[in-house]
Amino acid sequence: MADVGAKPVTARRALACGRIILGEAAFDQVVNRSLAKGDALTLAQVAGIQGAKLAPTLIPLCHPINLTRVVIRQQLLPSQQAVEIYCLAEISERTGVEMEALAGVNAALLTIWDLAKPVNAALEITGVRLLYKSGGKSGTWTHPEGLPERASELLETGQ
Amino acid sequence: MADVGAKPVTARRALACGRIILGEAAFDQVVNRSLAKGDALTLAQVAGIQGAKLAPTLIPLCHPINLTRVVIRQQLLPSQQAVEIYCLAEISERTGVEMEALAGVNAALLTIWDLAKPVNAALEITGVRLLYKSGGKSGTWTHPEGLPERASELLETGQ
Amino acid sequence: MADVGAKPVTARRALACGRIILGEAAFDQVVNRSLAKGDALTLAQVAGIQGAKLAPTLIPLCHPINLTRVVIRQQLLPSQQAVEIYCLAEISERTGVEMEALAGVNAALLTIWDLAKPVNAALEITGVRLLYKSGGKSGTWTHPEGLPERASELLETGQ
Amino acid sequence: MADVGAKPVTARRALACGRIILGEAAFDQVVNRSLAKGDALTLAQVAGIQGAKLAPTLIPLCHPINLTRVVIRQQLLPSQQAVEIYCLAEISERTGVEMEALAGVNAALLTIWDLAKPVNAALEITGVRLLYKSGGKSGTWTHPEGLPERASELLETGQ
Amino acid sequence: MADVGAKPVTARRALACGRIILGEAAFDQVVNRSLAKGDALTLAQVAGIQGAKLAPTLIPLCHPINLTRVVIRQQLLPSQQAVEIYCLAEISERTGVEMEALAGVNAALLTIWDLAKPVNAALEITGVRLLYKSGGKSGTWTHPEGLPERASELLETGQ
Amino acid sequence: MADVGAKPVTARRALACGRIILGEAAFDQVVNRSLAKGDALTLAQVAGIQGAKLAPTLIPLCHPINLTRVVIRQQLLPSQQAVEIYCLAEISERTGVEMEALAGVNAALLTIWDLAKPVNAALEITGVRLLYKSGGKSGTWTHPEGLPERASELLETGQ
Repeated sequence: MADVGAKPVTARRALACGRIILGEAAFDQVVNRSLAKGDALTLAQVAGIQGAKLAPTLIPLCHPINLTRVVIRQQLLPSQQAVEIYCLAEISERTGVEMEALAGVNAALLTIWDLAKPVNAALEITGVRLLYKSGGKSGTWTHPEGLPERASELLETGQ
Repeated sequence: MADVGAKPVTARRALACGRIILGEAAFDQVVNRSLAKGDALTLAQVAGIQGAKLAPTLIPLCHPINLTRVVIRQQLLPSQQAVEIYCLAEISERTGVEMEALAGVNAALLTIWDLAKPVNAALEITGVRLLYKSGGKSGTWTHPEGLPERASELLETGQ
Repeated sequence: MADVGAKPVTARRALACGRIILGEAAFDQVVNRSLAKGDALTLAQVAGIQGAKLAPTLIPLCHPINLTRVVIRQQLLPSQQAVEIYCLAEISERTGVEMEALAGVNAALLTIWDLAKPVNAALEITGVRLLYKSGGKSGTWTHPEGLPERASELLETGQ
Repeated sequence: MADVGAKPVTARRALACGRIILGEAAFDQVVNRSLAKGDALTLAQVAGIQGAKLAPTLIPLCHPINLTRVVIRQQLLPSQQAVEIYCLAEISERTGVEMEALAGVNAALLTIWDLAKPVNAALEITGVRLLYKSGGKSGTWTHPEGLPERASELLETGQ
Repeated sequence: MADVGAKPVTARRALACGRIILGEAAFDQVVNRSLAKGDALTLAQVAGIQGAKLAPTLIPLCHPINLTRVVIRQQLLPSQQAVEIYCLAEISERTGVEMEALAGVNAALLTIWDLAKPVNAALEITGVRLLYKSGGKSGTWTHPEGLPERASELLETGQ
Repeated sequence: MADVGAKPVTARRALACGRIILGEAAFDQVVNRSLAKGDALTLAQVAGIQGAKLAPTLIPLCHPINLTRVVIRQQLLPSQQAVEIYCLAEISERTGVEMEALAGVNAALLTIWDLAKPVNAALEITGVRLLYKSGGKSGTWTHPEGLPERASELLETGQ
């Protein structure tokens, strides 16, 4: 686990996203909140927040940090029968918060999978990316393909 | 959390896969095991196994189960500058083991991300799929697009 | 941790309940799902299930077990400005499942507390009880004061 | 998980309490430390401290924080055949510590329950309250019904 | 994580031991239960049980199992100014329980260390061994140097 | 859990060590990385880092802290057919980091045990010591028997 003791404590943010392709039947039941096991979108919110907290448990070289904010947001993508998950994570620490944002996205997507799998076993998680990070020595970074509108809004409003 | 008490205990297997696209520089350093933070492929193996065990912690409606085997295998995909991760999970329980296999794949991929991110921030996780499951009421299921060769070998040999 | 190795594996159920007294303002916002931090009733559902799984982590002498079902249900008690939480837990094991049901109730109630506390700091958790257990050597037990209607329904229907 | 990044780091304290009503036989065995499974009062101390640390695992929107002190104290209430548990939790962070104190109380009470349940299944947890908190924007707050003597002593002496 | 799916479920036991050398001052305070931070012997009991449950979290290739019994016992060794810890662990599973017994011993010893370290920083953990295991294909095994009397008693009586 | 709230935040380091005696056959297979279950030395590295993070979960009175660095190093001791593990842990906190370093050593040693045990059941963990600590009120402390060369190098170079 890398030495971050000499780095200054700065406010840091990271925003990650990822998508689950559900197929027609599962997408409809996710959207209508009619899946037999429960409401996938709501469960994904909670699982995403807990997943961000679990990053140092899941990822061996990840430093334990005290997250000051985690926000999970979802966007329906009907044309792809998919749900996009965004996770914004923030800290004031000596190390970055990208892995927390990514772990939050993954836990949210796996939770949607768990609820949708009785309807469709051939689901797919795709497009898991870091979109933005700020703070620390390397400063602000934005994904070279730019930010989706929902991501920009989340960064600006925190909602 | 769904009632599985009335289901019979049967031997169950699940095989999942997923890929991280690294770009040229990070792919080379992963393959040459020259990343500054350590050997991503070896860490991913350990993280994948621990990740499979963490499924019921990560995924709210996932039943706690006693995994009898977890195998993590990786395949280099030089043409895509990517690493493919496979996770085979097995149990003798009343409930399926798909989520454990998927959680294992995700933890392994996030761990590679963590080590490769100083080289390339624009990484991407893609193609996370369930490939195969057997056991339980619904019997054996194979992904409609078929199994990659490495997956078939893993199912046959357990290696 | 007591020896349960010689006990037979039997199907076991436990049902517990508990209540949080919110006061007028917080009760209204819980019911209208208008609390600033989120929807307390939905979060309590998820937290209750995860709380039941955490029983052997929380309670030193509690055996690790593989829960086959956890159900969290809530009942609004407007006359007391309170929410009643029920947790039904089931296993097929050598040991009872009471502590899991109680840990589920507690985690759900603490989660409602966490969301309602900006509105009212003087909340109170009260009436945490085991209502019913079955299976094992001691057979079926019902609380001497009888079962509330909602509890009987939950035992019968699992909903 | 709410944004606390802009809040100043201040010293914060919270004191919570709660009670388990044991009935005559179980109360006597708790007090005489003669329960077959072990010494409930001692186990409750340890479980309470670990429970306070587990707050962000148990409660979805709870921020991970670095507790600087946790104290568990118990008071016998012979007239009610009950044990009262107090938990004092302290931090220097951007967010409050109430949920940690409450989670500590709950874990201690559940542990007493676990040891006393072979003697009496009809136990009850009641009167779980926040008694006091200080630090942060809202300053010092005391429960409107005032502090029990044992609570005042614990706040003053830390014992 | 090795495949144990084809192994039969059998009753298995493992007994491990280990020792912490405290030096005169710390040994006296452990024995007299006068350490400033608390009663090391009692805390070690609880920590040892929880440590045995944590084996699959601590040890990557360790299978998750449902322990049916964990017993921690301690023996004072005044001539060495040391405390010997024994941990007996039992399961009915497809895999052995040695690592759980060893993890229990280690957690108990680390807990004594934590309480004794203000008195003496030059503590030492030594002689951590597996003493006995039974069940499974390889049958009963006893350490080639034989069993200490306390170990034989623990195996016979479970106390 | 002791009150550390009034202590200043300082940079702190701790270095611990410990040894596993493997016997000839197991030592050879560890060194040649030919154990059937996998590469013990590599797994021990990962397990040691995760073990250091788990200190407050394993040890009841251990404060949760945000480690800024953990390094696990191993040294082969052919004359003793043993592997020595070193763990360097660092923080900027109000409390010491010795228990984290010791928990890291223990988890690494237990992991080697888990992989080597099919070859030799009569393994032994011995010589678990704190070698060095710095920071905090008591300043720098070195073990009275001095530091092994490998330990001095690790303190100087962090490698």
